[in-house]
Amino acid sequence: MKAIVYNGPRDVKVSNVPDARIERSTDALVRITATNICGSDLHMYEGRTDVERGKVLGHENLGEVIEVGAAVERIQPGDMVCLPFNISCGYCENCERGWTGFCLTVNPGNAGGAYGYAGMGPYSGGQAEYLRVPYADFNCLKLPEDAREKQDDYVMLADIFPTGYHATELAGVQPGESVVIYGAGPVGLLAAYSATLRGASQVMLVDRHPDRLHLAESIGAMAVDDAKGSPVDPVMDLTNGRGADKGCECVGYQAHDPQGHEHPNATMNNLVRSVRATGALGVVGVFVPEDPQSPDDLAKEGKVSFDLGLYFQKGLRMASGQTNVKQYNRRLCELIAKGKAKLSFIVSHRLPLEQGPDAYRHFDAREQGWTKVVLRAAA
Amino acid sequence: MKAIVYNGPRDVKVSNVPDARIERSTDALVRITATNICGSDLHMYEGRTDVERGKVLGHENLGEVIEVGAAVERIQPGDMVCLPFNISCGYCENCERGWTGFCLTVNPGNAGGAYGYAGMGPYSGGQAEYLRVPYADFNCLKLPEDAREKQDDYVMLADIFPTGYHATELAGVQPGESVVIYGAGPVGLLAAYSATLRGASQVMLVDRHPDRLHLAESIGAMAVDDAKGSPVDPVMDLTNGRGADKGCECVGYQAHDPQGHEHPNATMNNLVRSVRATGALGVVGVFVPEDPQSPDDLAKEGKVSFDLGLYFQKGLRMASGQTNVKQYNRRLCELIAKGKAKLSFIVSHRLPLEQGPDAYRHFDAREQGWTKVVLRAAA
Amino acid sequence: MKAIVYNGPRDVKVSNVPDARIERSTDALVRITATNICGSDLHMYEGRTDVERGKVLGHENLGEVIEVGAAVERIQPGDMVCLPFNISCGYCENCERGWTGFCLTVNPGNAGGAYGYAGMGPYSGGQAEYLRVPYADFNCLKLPEDAREKQDDYVMLADIFPTGYHATELAGVQPGESVVIYGAGPVGLLAAYSATLRGASQVMLVDRHPDRLHLAESIGAMAVDDAKGSPVDPVMDLTNGRGADKGCECVGYQAHDPQGHEHPNATMNNLVRSVRATGALGVVGVFVPEDPQSPDDLAKEGKVSFDLGLYFQKGLRMASGQTNVKQYNRRLCELIAKGKAKLSFIVSHRLPLEQGPDAYRHFDAREQGWTKVVLRAAA
Amino acid sequence: MKAIVYNGPRDVKVSNVPDARIERSTDALVRITATNICGSDLHMYEGRTDVERGKVLGHENLGEVIEVGAAVERIQPGDMVCLPFNISCGYCENCERGWTGFCLTVNPGNAGGAYGYAGMGPYSGGQAEYLRVPYADFNCLKLPEDAREKQDDYVMLADIFPTGYHATELAGVQPGESVVIYGAGPVGLLAAYSATLRGASQVMLVDRHPDRLHLAESIGAMAVDDAKGSPVDPVMDLTNGRGADKGCECVGYQAHDPQGHEHPNATMNNLVRSVRATGALGVVGVFVPEDPQSPDDLAKEGKVSFDLGLYFQKGLRMASGQTNVKQYNRRLCELIAKGKAKLSFIVSHRLPLEQGPDAYRHFDAREQGWTKVVLRAAA
Repeated sequence: MKAIVYNGPRDVKVSNVPDARIERSTDALVRITATNICGSDLHMYEGRTDVERGKVLGHENLGEVIEVGAAVERIQPGDMVCLPFNISCGYCENCERGWTGFCLTVNPGNAGGAYGYAGMGPYSGGQAEYLRVPYADFNCLKLPEDAREKQDDYVMLADIFPTGYHATELAGVQPGESVVIYGAGPVGLLAAYSATLRGASQVMLVDRHPDRLHLAESIGAMAVDDAKGSPVDPVMDLTNGRGADKGCECVGYQAHDPQGHEHPNATMNNLVRSVRATGALGVVGVFVPEDPQSPDDLAKEGKVSFDLGLYFQKGLRMASGQTNVKQYNRRLCELIAKGKAKLSFIVSHRLPLEQGPDAYRHFDAREQGWTKVVLRAAA
Repeated sequence: MKAIVYNGPRDVKVSNVPDARIERSTDALVRITATNICGSDLHMYEGRTDVERGKVLGHENLGEVIEVGAAVERIQPGDMVCLPFNISCGYCENCERGWTGFCLTVNPGNAGGAYGYAGMGPYSGGQAEYLRVPYADFNCLKLPEDAREKQDDYVMLADIFPTGYHATELAGVQPGESVVIYGAGPVGLLAAYSATLRGASQVMLVDRHPDRLHLAESIGAMAVDDAKGSPVDPVMDLTNGRGADKGCECVGYQAHDPQGHEHPNATMNNLVRSVRATGALGVVGVFVPEDPQSPDDLAKEGKVSFDLGLYFQKGLRMASGQTNVKQYNRRLCELIAKGKAKLSFIVSHRLPLEQGPDAYRHFDAREQGWTKVVLRAAA
Repeated sequence: MKAIVYNGPRDVKVSNVPDARIERSTDALVRITATNICGSDLHMYEGRTDVERGKVLGHENLGEVIEVGAAVERIQPGDMVCLPFNISCGYCENCERGWTGFCLTVNPGNAGGAYGYAGMGPYSGGQAEYLRVPYADFNCLKLPEDAREKQDDYVMLADIFPTGYHATELAGVQPGESVVIYGAGPVGLLAAYSATLRGASQVMLVDRHPDRLHLAESIGAMAVDDAKGSPVDPVMDLTNGRGADKGCECVGYQAHDPQGHEHPNATMNNLVRSVRATGALGVVGVFVPEDPQSPDDLAKEGKVSFDLGLYFQKGLRMASGQTNVKQYNRRLCELIAKGKAKLSFIVSHRLPLEQGPDAYRHFDAREQGWTKVVLRAAA
Repeated sequence: MKAIVYNGPRDVKVSNVPDARIERSTDALVRITATNICGSDLHMYEGRTDVERGKVLGHENLGEVIEVGAAVERIQPGDMVCLPFNISCGYCENCERGWTGFCLTVNPGNAGGAYGYAGMGPYSGGQAEYLRVPYADFNCLKLPEDAREKQDDYVMLADIFPTGYHATELAGVQPGESVVIYGAGPVGLLAAYSATLRGASQVMLVDRHPDRLHLAESIGAMAVDDAKGSPVDPVMDLTNGRGADKGCECVGYQAHDPQGHEHPNATMNNLVRSVRATGALGVVGVFVPEDPQSPDDLAKEGKVSFDLGLYFQKGLRMASGQTNVKQYNRRLCELIAKGKAKLSFIVSHRLPLEQGPDAYRHFDAREQGWTKVVLRAAA
């Protein structure tokens, strides 16, 4: 089958690879009809991870079940399903408490596995014609009847809608509260969208890309342009000097200034200053335990210089980590099905799988207008 | 009246100061019968704060009401009361949500006030014969009939019992979980005590002072001696390689190695390593937004080098800040009243107010056996 | 001053009564500019309570502070304020935990007090020119600068917006869930409005008055007309046979069939059947401990015949009681201030105080189009 | 194999039945070494259910895995396991949220399945030599190394420890609170034990059997003998007129007075009166949707005459239903393993399977001293 394969830094190609197939009796085989390129794919693309060459990428996947293993009960060929990016067994100590992003089974020695991702186990990704889905009864989200027509909305359930939502859940956003979100990429935009869904009275979105700030405003958020100076001041102004009730980090360790220099602590410390005493932070931007290629000595070993003193004085809370997609995807799916959420506003490009490598290049360059790419596998 | 007054680094004296008195109609005047020296008093004693000379110290106070202002309704002369160290108005946005440690009224421009403490407003402390208590109806905890006989237990409700309990609440300790606590001073010991009260299956307490480790074991905790090497290894061993479910920080910014060199990030990063993925941390040890006298450059500006990458990878949560005493003190009082909690095990010295300066010297030197000092004002 | 006074069943008049005034140093005096008639006022109006003759009615009040007592600090003359219908002290055991609807101080021997209401203490209501507000620093919600122009929205913060919201909070409505609400009076409509604010994917509102059902649809809810038969069947149909995730009771003990016969258990048992296993109910419709005038023997002593067996089998939860207005009013106020909530859609009549008695008559008759009356005191 | 079979009201026998065996690839086969008789078995024994003749009873089971199906990964022959009485698939909408007591898969058309129980699906019980365990990876709790020696403690993890704990969880018992529990059978006793583990300051246990009241006191609870009159009065006395903070129902629909007349609403309404305003109730005693053999007309259709008026006035909450064993069993297991919980205090009889029928007869007669029976299958 055809698949997008990692061949080295900034080098991905559409290649022929062995067909995905049922390997265990609890697997399903899915023909991919929509698969996204994620901002976190760029960490691999840029060579900032130890992902092996030959890996098929892609962890935001949606498609049609075409075969199931002998032990699969709930899922049947013909079902349209969206696959959580986290692969999980359903029965380990973490899965049974809902922490499916930290499954102890699928990636032995680690907590958490995923499709097509560095350090997340031996699973091929879905930027391909077919995908093997382990523990299919547990992992497949069956989609409603309008799955095909709203495919560009439902595919966001694989990762970025639950991830953006997770940021607001970790921060405990309540109706009537104000929220500041750092990063208006796809995840930050959907965090803003989620905050509005939850009834926030004021959503502020910090970024510097005009197209992203424009999208922020299109969903009713206030755009804060940090190319114009510290974003903390406008946040304080917009909140009458109080600071936001809650904050979300949707950038991660490659946060950088407008000149491109990385400051992995920049968004975190700005959040500590932007949020009022008694507030809370949700951190879903990726930080990594080691980053040997970072120019920064602390960052090489996964550390940041963090304003713990101010954090403590303000009595803040901060929850972090990749989302447990299954905690949210059924409810978020209902919002799409009932017409209360429409996420395709972030899709800038719908391309065939073959144009994936091109799309990686444009997306990695943060080119104006390349917000989110959905790839459709060749029919 | 007599009171313990701060005169400069490592210089406190019992002096005559103007009598405490009712200043506003919502005040009460309390004759202090028991008042503790707190570990956080040592930050001032050592000259690590900007507390003004002449300040009367003491924020862990218990005594008898002898007069109330005209607007006071609930509290009457003769009531035995314990005073939360945080002074709070009861009606501001933070107080009404229970965040009485972050009152917006009592220390204008800041969130939170306290008796006799640096940066916590113009309030005299209770290491004195009398204490003025603002917003008496809101701040006084009326004690049961056995108040006088169990005074050494009830006085712990002013600060260190709710603070230790807060550590376990912030960490979300649930029955059956394992907990690791860094710091076996009075707060850490009562965090361990609280964890046991909440039904933890395993409580590990890290310190290096033999008397403290002995006390830890006397309440059923496992003592981990970090003078013998990294405490992370024994914690992993004691939990079969899993790490603790939850962790508490009860040391703060003056954490140091056995040689006395300060490493303000040591306990935090050890906690990140000691706690398992999906775990949570409660941070009640004091960290400060600036510490000009620290030898460490980051610490001077309130920063620590924090393992955010590992923290994120493990999906950890961390809540911090001074406790809101009133959220817990009624329930914890019931435990004392009903004989289910007995805290005086941590009291090493009961001394008259006059011996307070001596006690400060011994306690500051972390002399063997000086765990907790209760001062009784002269009768 | 002029005020609406209860003179007996279905007999209220605008009379001259002694001016409201500051009685204690913690009081404020408010000139009322907007005050609503509440559905619960009708319980008194109809003679179904033991409210004393001569009582000034009115517990949904908004106005301008014109005087404050000597101990009042936060509130000043000139402030526009909305008053929670529950009067609370701020310092008792219940208030300090946020249960201001169950204050132990203001109505001795009971839990909870209110303005102008049967059994809620000796407090005059605000359907009058002036209102005395006890514990002003605690009870007054200061309104934003647009208080006068959005007065018809802000006045809903006194009771029915927090009450409707409370129904959804008690039921634990989460984003993406489906909710069924019994009763489309003002509270039920604002429960539906609140459920939508919280991100419900589907809101079903059960009633039989065409004007109310029309209003329900105007805010995006699905109208279920129970004049056409059991409402449970359409709820099951609308949820594909699953039942709603959550349910709200916004009718109370005078629930009746289309023929006017009271069945105080009707909404409760329909809820038990309408909500799916693992669901939850929020009950804010008023039920009373005794109702001597009820035709029903069980109801006379405050009992209902309740489907506890089915409730248990489904593992349901049910939380009840009057709302604690202060738990929500600041956040809900922000939603109005920021233009995210607009509640005046429920206001059908804006009348001068003098026309209050007429309005009671129309409202009590559930006349078509009399949804909600705001009275403006004479200027 | 030998098994205890239901042959009709008050008629159970040890019979030879076909061997339990692996039926699906996700099954395990367990040789039972300990299995309890549960109070809820008596509902079937007494003929109050529609359980079919020939059913093998027994839902509190512990034993050794002797065979697993081809798709089982985590569980291996030789593992000592305790089986939650609820059978659950692990992947349905309810299971994935932790509501394993309301599995939508195992008992089609219903929410929830169990071993050997009326209306809970076609599953044989474990009062037998062998037991088939569906979805073994999800359902088996692997026990620690001391499984065999502490078998009488660990077997309580199948049902009554998690059920008693669930009562306290549903009621939200917090450290320092007072709790009243109705019913001092095995579940009520373990609810009391759980309340103490959670740090309750005062636990009151209502019953009338001297042996049970004696056991209550042996674990530090206060015994309230309702043979001496209404239990509400002593509860009010013991709480200084306040009422208990929280309450638990551990009796169910067969509640009766000392003369043996059933009053299915008795415990519920006593709870409403025993618990203070703002309190909460946890209901784990079984109530059924219909009870055709009840002498009471309401009860025939699963209804009780419930004090909803007082319940509402007090602002109470009430959560109900069978426990989701898997939400608690790992943590409770840790308490046993670490020596913090010892449950075998409730075991009155340890008997071979053959004496099961005799034990049913004694237990059903509530004979003095027959608190809890553990059956050991023949070696």
